[in-house]
Amino acid sequence: MSHETSSTPSPRQVVEDMLRKSPLNLGGAVSEQREIYRQMMQGLPTPQDVSTDKTTIGGVPVVTHTPASASGDTVLLYLHGGAYTFGSASDSAAMICAIARPVRATVISVDYRLAPEYPYPAALEDVIQVYRTLRGDHRGSTICMVGESAGGGLVLSTLLALKEQRLHQPSAAVVLSPWLDHAPTDRPANESQDLVLATESLWIRSRDYLGSPDALPSAVDALNADLSGLAPLHIQAGSSELLLTDALRLAHRAATAHVPVELHVGARMQHVFQNFRGLLPEADAAIRAAGDFLAAHRLS
Amino acid sequence: MSHETSSTPSPRQVVEDMLRKSPLNLGGAVSEQREIYRQMMQGLPTPQDVSTDKTTIGGVPVVTHTPASASGDTVLLYLHGGAYTFGSASDSAAMICAIARPVRATVISVDYRLAPEYPYPAALEDVIQVYRTLRGDHRGSTICMVGESAGGGLVLSTLLALKEQRLHQPSAAVVLSPWLDHAPTDRPANESQDLVLATESLWIRSRDYLGSPDALPSAVDALNADLSGLAPLHIQAGSSELLLTDALRLAHRAATAHVPVELHVGARMQHVFQNFRGLLPEADAAIRAAGDFLAAHRLS
Repeated sequence: MSHETSSTPSPRQVVEDMLRKSPLNLGGAVSEQREIYRQMMQGLPTPQDVSTDKTTIGGVPVVTHTPASASGDTVLLYLHGGAYTFGSASDSAAMICAIARPVRATVISVDYRLAPEYPYPAALEDVIQVYRTLRGDHRGSTICMVGESAGGGLVLSTLLALKEQRLHQPSAAVVLSPWLDHAPTDRPANESQDLVLATESLWIRSRDYLGSPDALPSAVDALNADLSGLAPLHIQAGSSELLLTDALRLAHRAATAHVPVELHVGARMQHVFQNFRGLLPEADAAIRAAGDFLAAHRLS
Repeated sequence: MSHETSSTPSPRQVVEDMLRKSPLNLGGAVSEQREIYRQMMQGLPTPQDVSTDKTTIGGVPVVTHTPASASGDTVLLYLHGGAYTFGSASDSAAMICAIARPVRATVISVDYRLAPEYPYPAALEDVIQVYRTLRGDHRGSTICMVGESAGGGLVLSTLLALKEQRLHQPSAAVVLSPWLDHAPTDRPANESQDLVLATESLWIRSRDYLGSPDALPSAVDALNADLSGLAPLHIQAGSSELLLTDALRLAHRAATAHVPVELHVGARMQHVFQNFRGLLPEADAAIRAAGDFLAAHRLS
């Protein structure tokens, strides 16, 4: 007699199964993995009630998402993920629009140049160029930044570069599962629990982006930089992902540098779990928390 | 020629001046400092539209605050501050009611026994007794916990004791500037910036509460305990206070134990800055964040 259990899998188990079956190999051949990553991202839902356009700002290609609710006086500058080598400004549109909606923001997603063809600082230069142009074009508007994974690291690089150049910080910044540490081995925890990232793959992509410098460029080394004066930071991570430690260390460094900081950790969540909104209650809660944070800092 | 500047002080400077002038000496003679602490707390605003009663629950004295908005199905169990030696259930009423209002909760503030007359575990026993009685009386209701300073430490002790006793955790817990570390010297940062607490005073009060044990009781040693299975935690601290490090360490420990965690750090804020709501925008934002967190976890 068999004792098969037919219990329904939890939303978390459904997502974990999906991730286990994913063909993405983050450390694999760039052209192949780019296509796999593109298809994965295209499988995510598209936003409703949003008008989407491709254009350029300051010569840099961007995708804009304008939710029906957008008021016109708040811009959310979004930096996509993909380990600095994959991904495009069209990614995660539904998720980023869900963050933008409660603050009635227009989303501007930057198609920054990718490694290895365009290593550091190409992506950072593109983002700064868009930011500076927006500052000129939208005087009096609120600009906030959101970045996902490598895009989260790029948000920190941007804030550090703006500080260095004595330019205005954005009103607030949200980083989802930010990738910040570029050392080859530094994350004993969660290597076995993470279903998306692996230390070795990150190291491969890190060399694509940075080469093998003697020392990290200061704008890349956020975990060792002086973070004082940076925009208020809202940091999210899943407790089962490799990059949890990057998020915790960033929160620690920012708080001790007197930056207003929020940290939001989703229990047993994976890398950028926010993309599974509507399926994971934890994703919905995280997106709400990010929106609440942006709302609290919109006019500052 | 003098160059006096007559610029208006910022809300933060007003609060800092008040704290600098405070006669409280946390490490001073208990009876004297208790009275000073009582007067300080009485100087804080009282809540509007709230009916307040003194009663007992399971034989333990409590103060209840019922905002006009309370729905009757959510209880917010509140543990006051005062280094385990000062303070009463009447403290911080306006602040705790401001947290309770958006979740339509009734506040029950516990008059737990104080050290040195009643050292550990007297206070913890009182809280557990109230919690168990509430669980029996309010089946189907949501119970959440909020604690301030030593009361935040006591919230953690309660969660750990409930886990040990295999009792239900509350739906969520909020700890404001929690005091968690009972080692005599462990906080190099912020000793000079904190206008309320000092390492030496904390150590005096710690010995009142715990004596000089060879090892900390496991329910007191939250920073070294296994936190897995604890209720979702929302942790707040000011970046200029001595206990910032307690908050950061708790967030780290809880996140790596897969507890849902939020950390909210107010830039250049002092110990329990939330009590200066209406004056400090940072206090208002922190209270809103705590309420948002409780709302997100109310029905879980």
